[in-house]
Amino acid sequence: MANQTRSEVLLVGCGGVGALCAYNLEVGTQANVTAVLRSNYDAVDKNGFSISSIEHGEVTGWRPSKITRTISGNGKPFDFIVVTTKNIPDQPPAIAEVISPAVTHGHTIIVLLQNGINIERPLFKAFPDNIVLSGVSMISATETEPGKVRQDDPDILIISPFHNPRISMERESAAAQSFVDLYSASGKASCKLEPDVGTIRWRKLIYNACYNSICAILDMDTTTIRYAKHPVNDLVRPAMWEIWHIAKATGHPLPADIVEEMVDIDTWSFFKPSMAQDTSKGNFTEYENIVGEPLREAQRVNVPAPTLTVIYGILKALQWKVRAQNGLIKVPLERPQSLSLLEDS
Amino acid sequence: MANQTRSEVLLVGCGGVGALCAYNLEVGTQANVTAVLRSNYDAVDKNGFSISSIEHGEVTGWRPSKITRTISGNGKPFDFIVVTTKNIPDQPPAIAEVISPAVTHGHTIIVLLQNGINIERPLFKAFPDNIVLSGVSMISATETEPGKVRQDDPDILIISPFHNPRISMERESAAAQSFVDLYSASGKASCKLEPDVGTIRWRKLIYNACYNSICAILDMDTTTIRYAKHPVNDLVRPAMWEIWHIAKATGHPLPADIVEEMVDIDTWSFFKPSMAQDTSKGNFTEYENIVGEPLREAQRVNVPAPTLTVIYGILKALQWKVRAQNGLIKVPLERPQSLSLLEDS
Repeated sequence: MANQTRSEVLLVGCGGVGALCAYNLEVGTQANVTAVLRSNYDAVDKNGFSISSIEHGEVTGWRPSKITRTISGNGKPFDFIVVTTKNIPDQPPAIAEVISPAVTHGHTIIVLLQNGINIERPLFKAFPDNIVLSGVSMISATETEPGKVRQDDPDILIISPFHNPRISMERESAAAQSFVDLYSASGKASCKLEPDVGTIRWRKLIYNACYNSICAILDMDTTTIRYAKHPVNDLVRPAMWEIWHIAKATGHPLPADIVEEMVDIDTWSFFKPSMAQDTSKGNFTEYENIVGEPLREAQRVNVPAPTLTVIYGILKALQWKVRAQNGLIKVPLERPQSLSLLEDS
Repeated sequence: MANQTRSEVLLVGCGGVGALCAYNLEVGTQANVTAVLRSNYDAVDKNGFSISSIEHGEVTGWRPSKITRTISGNGKPFDFIVVTTKNIPDQPPAIAEVISPAVTHGHTIIVLLQNGINIERPLFKAFPDNIVLSGVSMISATETEPGKVRQDDPDILIISPFHNPRISMERESAAAQSFVDLYSASGKASCKLEPDVGTIRWRKLIYNACYNSICAILDMDTTTIRYAKHPVNDLVRPAMWEIWHIAKATGHPLPADIVEEMVDIDTWSFFKPSMAQDTSKGNFTEYENIVGEPLREAQRVNVPAPTLTVIYGILKALQWKVRAQNGLIKVPLERPQSLSLLEDS
């Protein structure tokens, strides 16, 4: 009986954040979660998840309602698809393509718990009649080994509707509220509705486009950068003000003290933001949505962004290197006859 | 008898370039070279240098007239001190301090075979009555193991006087010519006098401030960067044009086609310039004289240099990291009470 009213949720990307999200949703008993697992499928299939959480305590041998390796339709259509994977549009397959088999047009609500801006655009294009929600998660959850997850900070999730001109704002807001209710049902996580998605996401970019990217380039943590000081003065702060000015010019004014707040927001914990973790592991970074999109907005509204321009060029080159290191590009041992350095490829 | 007319030369920095320089000078039989050796002293003391050179052939067991670990005066005063060490003004001891015991005031001619600009200034200050010469070397000589040196490209050395307002240009030019004669005596190397030191050094900066620094930041070689193309378009070429404009504004106009010439100057040999070699070995880089000084010139003459500004900020942070990795800086585990991020240190 209870089961009949439960929402069907597909959770794509079941690392630290995804596993906590799945667990929190099922603890609320209003959702059946189908979790798409990749690298940790065998571990979770055998032993379930082990979760050590400041909110949920010690959990062992927990399994979502259903686990799967591949994405397909459901007996009942999915009410929500929650995507917590990294968002790397320059590296196929696209997220829209990945989730496509599970989307019921006009019904499934897509929730993007991902960094950056303009991430809704490819989803609007692929699924013009589906509501897309923004999730900005403050959780610090890490998968320490396959299936083992540790959560050190409270689970704070901010949900906002991305506005699709084909869909009414009322329906979008109602959908956002329904996901907030679903996520809050556990009584553990703090999930809030914030109508102004732009301000939320630009605010987070002040940190992400600057500290996250600069830590990746320097292979340094934010504590060390703050102690060294000159990287804050030479790089972080100028980049943050550029984001602040782009945000303002695109209609998302932020308070002036946000820059100093973000400069010093991390505790003295030698924290390496996600892109820095990615580069030191030889992984692709989310540089396109975190730096590329703000920079394209800057060009659109004619706001100078010299620091971010160079940071973007460097991150793009580092991404190219990862492709080459993974054998996706092979540099020929002899100079190709066709190589002209005066035209772009 | 021949010995009485020989010049006394102190050679500081006896790696690949220095060893070839010492050998070439002594082959000419007009110089007695005292070579200051550090890491390779024991190897050279025991077995001499082994040199494999496209100009000098295969040489084994060769020793300069004198080798030493420390710098001191000479029985006869040194006529020339040739410095081929890296020039890292932000990392003591300063070169002027290092060579000081061997300089005879008003007599010894100091020859700086080093990268960057404004490198003569600290020498002018320390030795106001000594002539300082610029040496720009095109040699590609590598010490493959202590005492073993390989030279693949011709030894081309361009000598120019740095103009010290206290000394007449005639005396400076004569000194430069005397070193050219000394270096040319072997009949092997190609050593030329070029009166316009500024143009020579700014020309080399088009390569060094851009490819050298960007390869260091990206840990890439110039061949790979050219094949990837977008790092050339996004980073290398904009930085080169900035140097070109700073050079022009400071009175060193360069031809407009120099940029494309430098973009494509390296052979398809996957060459990693010196700073990139330094960063991948965890060594200090010469970023202050190669990027910092041109940038200070840009500020002085009010030429915008946004790309070089960010490159400089990154290289400064990487240099700081090397200091920290070598234990010269220790980041405290707790936040220092005195840390204020709004004032520079």
